[in-house]
Parts: sequence; C-alpha cells; structure tokens
Amino acid sequence: MTSARPPGRVWAHVGQPFTPGTDPQAPYDVLILGAGRMGSALALTLTEHAPHLKTLLVEEGGLPNEDGATILAPGIWTTAHLPESQHGAARWTLERLRDLLGDDLQPRPYLTLHDQPAPNTQPTRDLLGAHPQSLALLDPEALPHARAHEAHTYRPGTLAQVAAQSAIRRGTDLLLNTSATPHPGGRVTLERLTVTNTHQVVTHDIHTIHAPLIVLATGAHAPAQAEHHLGVHTRHARAYRQTPHLAAPSTEAAPVLHARGLTLRPQHGAYTLIPPIHHRDPHGYAPQGGHLTGVPTGLRRETLEDLVGLMDALPPLATSDLHLGRSLADIPGAWLALPGGQPDATPTHQRLDDHTHLLLGGPHADTLGLWTADELARNIAGEVGRR
Amino acid sequence: MTSARPPGRVWAHVGQPFTPGTDPQAPYDVLILGAGRMGSALALTLTEHAPHLKTLLVEEGGLPNEDGATILAPGIWTTAHLPESQHGAARWTLERLRDLLGDDLQPRPYLTLHDQPAPNTQPTRDLLGAHPQSLALLDPEALPHARAHEAHTYRPGTLAQVAAQSAIRRGTDLLLNTSATPHPGGRVTLERLTVTNTHQVVTHDIHTIHAPLIVLATGAHAPAQAEHHLGVHTRHARAYRQTPHLAAPSTEAAPVLHARGLTLRPQHGAYTLIPPIHHRDPHGYAPQGGHLTGVPTGLRRETLEDLVGLMDALPPLATSDLHLGRSLADIPGAWLALPGGQPDATPTHQRLDDHTHLLLGGPHADTLGLWTADELARNIAGEVGRR
Repeated sequence: MTSARPPGRVWAHVGQPFTPGTDPQAPYDVLILGAGRMGSALALTLTEHAPHLKTLLVEEGGLPNEDGATILAPGIWTTAHLPESQHGAARWTLERLRDLLGDDLQPRPYLTLHDQPAPNTQPTRDLLGAHPQSLALLDPEALPHARAHEAHTYRPGTLAQVAAQSAIRRGTDLLLNTSATPHPGGRVTLERLTVTNTHQVVTHDIHTIHAPLIVLATGAHAPAQAEHHLGVHTRHARAYRQTPHLAAPSTEAAPVLHARGLTLRPQHGAYTLIPPIHHRDPHGYAPQGGHLTGVPTGLRRETLEDLVGLMDALPPLATSDLHLGRSLADIPGAWLALPGGQPDATPTHQRLDDHTHLLLGGPHADTLGLWTADELARNIAGEVGRR
Repeated sequence: MTSARPPGRVWAHVGQPFTPGTDPQAPYDVLILGAGRMGSALALTLTEHAPHLKTLLVEEGGLPNEDGATILAPGIWTTAHLPESQHGAARWTLERLRDLLGDDLQPRPYLTLHDQPAPNTQPTRDLLGAHPQSLALLDPEALPHARAHEAHTYRPGTLAQVAAQSAIRRGTDLLLNTSATPHPGGRVTLERLTVTNTHQVVTHDIHTIHAPLIVLATGAHAPAQAEHHLGVHTRHARAYRQTPHLAAPSTEAAPVLHARGLTLRPQHGAYTLIPPIHHRDPHGYAPQGGHLTGVPTGLRRETLEDLVGLMDALPPLATSDLHLGRSLADIPGAWLALPGGQPDATPTHQRLDDHTHLLLGGPHADTLGLWTADELARNIAGEVGRR
C-alpha cells in the first residue's frame, strides 16, 4: 500500500506559480474538485488503490475543510438510523475513522428517546441515571422510553484535513484558493483567487488543464455544476441545514440525545442542535431567517417550527438557552447535498460522462462517507487498469 | 331551511358607498374573509344552519372565485386517494355538489395506472379499450395495470360563484374588490380598492368594523394573516402548484388518468396536468421557472423533474405537446394551502382566538371542502346558540 512517490506539492496562494507536472496539457491523471471530506477521502483512497495515478485536489477555500457542509456536519458515527443492509459499510467506515483520527474519535453513548415503548427501549430515567445533566434537559414524562446505540463522535473538518494531508504525503498535489469549472471532454478551468487590499476576491490567473478523469466532490454545489457545465441532469437536490447552539452545559462524557428527529450533540461544553431534514428545498430557494409571531429570528421558519414542537419534551428549547439569533448570519448553516433528492439517502457516486464522476456525501456522510469514497477509488483503479 | 331575509347586497365597486346595516359599529354577526370556494361555501351553509346570523363575505378580487387556488383547482371529486374513514364525508360532499352544480357536475372515469399489479387492477389495455385516444397517451408496457375509480369533474370557480350567489339570495352581503385585515378583538379593517387611469390599484376608502365572529378563508394566505395580524402561530404551510397544459386531444368522455402522482385531467379538448405535491415549500420561497440542462422553462424545477421521470411511461410529455413556457408567467400556478403542513392533509377548520376561525381547503378541497365548510357552519350555529 506504500507509494514510492515523493510527497505532493501544495499551492496555497497566488504568490506560488502554479506549474503542474511535465505535460502542460494533461499533467494529472485525476482532478478532484472540492477538498471537503468526500474529496479529501477520495484523494487518499486513490493513493491506496491506484498509487500510480497522479492526482490534483482543488479547493476553493484556503484549507481542505473550508466548505460549510463538512465543517458543520454533526460528526456522529452511528448506525441508529441506518437499515441493516448498510451496517457493514458503516463498520468499515468506523475502522477507517479509527485509523485516521486516533484519539480524535471518541466513543460516546447515543440515546434515541421515544414517546412509546419500542424494541430494546428502557425507561429514560434508568438509562440516563448516570447522566443527571442530560436528564435535566428533557421531560421524562414526555419521552419516557429510551434506547442506547453505539456511537462515536469526531470533527469532520479534522477528518478532511487528516485525509488531505495523508494524500499529500503519498503524492497528491493540492491547489487551494482556486475556483474550478469542469467542461465536457475532461477539461477544467482553474481560476486562482486572491484578495485585494479592499477585500475583494478577484481572479489572479486562469489555467486550463485536461485530465482523463475528473471527480466533482463539491457537495451540494456538484449537481448544479454537472448540469450547468456538463449538461448532465440529475435528480440530486439539496437542503439548507442550520445547526443552532443550545447553551445547556455538557461534559466530555455526555451522551448524544435524539428525539423526534432532532439530535442534541454535546460540543464545546454545550450542545449543537441538528434538526431533522424532512425534504429537499426547492430550486431557487434563498435561505432566510423566520418570524415567530412577529419576532424576527435567524432560524429558518421550518426549523423553528420543529423546535417549537419539541419544547414540551425538551424544556430548555423554550428558554433563552436556545440561540435564535436575529438574522440568518447569526446561525451556523450550510447547504447539504441530498443524493437522489431524498433526505434519508446514503452517500453515492455516479458516472456523469466519459471523463467525469460525481461524489456526494449528504446526511449520512458521517457514518458512510469514507466507504463510498473508497468504493469510487476502487472503481477508478479498476477502470484505469482495464484501459 | 328557507330564510325570511331579503336578499343580501353586493358592493362591486367603490362607486357604491359601503353602508352596512344599522349598527355602524357591529353591523354583522359574521365576517368571512375570502370568497373562494371555502369562504363561499361557508357563507351558504351558514344561511342554512344559522339563518338568523347576518354575514358579510369579503373578497379582494372582483368575483367570488378570483383567487388562483380555486380557479386552478383540478375540480375532480374522487375517493381514489382518501382513506376509508373519509369516504362518508366525501359522499356527503358529492350530494352537495349535485345539488349546487346540477349538470355542471359530470361523471367521468378515473383510472390509476400502476407499474405493478395491485388490488382491483386490470390490464391497462383492457380498461382503456373503449378510449383509444387515452391509450395513445401512455406506454402500456410501462404502466400495464390500471384500476377504475368513481369520479366526477366540475369547475371549482363555478362552485364558488354558485355558492356565493345562493348565499346572497338568502341574505348574505358581498363586498368585492376589498382587502381585509383581521385584528385581535373581532375588528377588521376593510380597504376598498380601485384602479386608476394609470392601472395602479389604490385604496379608495377604509372602514373598520367589528363582528363577534370572523372566519379567515383566504386559502394559502390565511396562516400568515393569522400569525402577522392576530399573533397566532400555526403549523399550516403552503406549496406553489403549477398546472401545465398538454396539447393532446381529449373528448368529453375521456377518463382522468393518474400515474405516479401525476393527474392528467381532460379539459377544454386537451389535458391539464396536475403534478404531485411532495411537501411544503419553505417560508420565503419565491416561485420561479427552472432550467433543464440550460434551457429556461416556466415550470418550476421540481415539477419539471417529476415530468421528466414520467416521460418513459407517458411519451407525449417528451414532445412539444407539453407546454413548458419560457418564464413563470407562462404557466398557470397558484399557492395551495397545506393544512398542518402536510401534502395529503384534508380540509380543516380551527379556532384561532375568541373571535376568529380559520377555514382551509388544500389539496383535497375538491372532494371534501363542502363537508368541512358545513361542519364549521354547524359549529358556529351551535356556539351562537349557546350564547
């Protein structure tokens, strides 16, 4: 599995001239657009399955985790919401997460809370007996039944960085602060961006390169890029997810709580709320803060309604501990890809044309993303092998 | 059931001074805001269940069916998509439709088309044997199984007009071209609108009146009015539904066809397409035309995707017979209320405060709307009786 290649190069800013490889027309075998966790994981797994391929990873931001969907992902590995058929892929992903993250992957209890008894539930008071701070978050009369699931938490941004750094050590090149546009025929336009004294982002220089294989790993933006630039229509969609802050105290050992679709993830000594995704957002929707009986909030209306519906079961949601914000900018949020347009879809990859693949993470990327990236890397290795 | 009242008055334009009743403070017992089919039906049923109440029906448009959701409703009575528990209310509604519409209510076959055999299905070729024009619309290999349901078609705009006219004959007053704003405490502001020589809609005069009972029957706008003006938050939502035209020939006897959520309704010698509603549209969404691999269309993206997914089974959708338009204005469309935020919810009414009720039709108003309006009228008659 070890590559004999020297480490890859990193172009972080336009002060470093972009001088790829020896063949100015086609210096790379593979171009990966987007260094979120899916693109970074693909870069790494390609060095393992196809070490002879020379790969360039291109990222519009200044770090291999700059995109919102990776930074704001919950970072919870759990099979609690997956069908049995996906558990093998999830287990495989967990082993990979252990290898890559080490102690940054933390085992943590994950409790689903229920109105009615269900298979394997116990009384909520019993199951949370050892966690009085967690028990204080909820009304055990409203959510009397609970079930414990295995879970591990981590920072998806860290995962993207670790994967990208490992790939670079094994020969992958990384081009940061660069906007990439795919074109038919394996051509990609690269616009290297810089910031002026007046804080405008401008294009410093443009490069056009060719590659036999291009992978769109730009998350929620990828389906629109496929359609606008390559003319390939897909049914993938996206949803804007906000992750508001709940200022209730949590410890390192506090369990993740999940009730009626809402996840409460202990983080930074408090909680990050991960609301349910019920469906795609329509094409052309611009996220905006809502109003609750006239009061403007930074939370979008649909999320606000879900939280209001949970206030009886989770009383802290009805207090000022819930950070509602005054406008959209006050609440962390990002566009999340929904593979196939479905809110419960698992990560996927898809061939778009002779030169281009699509790689999408989505809502289950925490638990299955590495497996899907690895699967695409194996496919690419097989394809190239057959050529 | 006959009222001794003289017929009600109609104020159609600002040239007619609005001089309601004898008590200038509270000239009416009931104010109904919105003369779509739900508001008009409520006005009529109130004259039946509570003939002693004096009602004013207020409509922002110039006719009691001017609102898009009524005019663009499919006008198909059928129990094909309703649970058994709703069939009694649907049957009752059908009898009412017969009374009100007479020959304008037409029995018509309604065929659900299926990929797989299901209870009571027959071969599609057999069931459509008598309708070669309908059979030519579809690929019987892709949709080999069909089931016939009872259905009746009518024009919802006609229903609203007939109901409002009947109510007026029985004593209800009607105020047209008037924008109404409800306030707490049973107060309503009425702005009578007129059009200037330069085609601007302006307020001509403003009246404030009180009534013991106010009913918001403004369709998809009602939940926002409840919240903004009365401070009452609800979970009702809305979706923007477009009903594109398919220029395939149809006869008076042609059956309604329903496949994978899409309804093809014979109308005006061709077909009106009624796409499925999958979910609410988010708060703040502005409808807009989509792009299909770069080509602008007047159809919203989500609807376009549903139609593209049906092109194999319904080949005419892939031809120029389908009117795609170039911009939103080219395709008939309207906001539809979704009671409880659910796309499959039945019509509903709800008490908002001491003075105000909400009355919502939504996707099943064709089959159940009159029953729900009648139920609210009976409730109001009972309430007033107890006072």
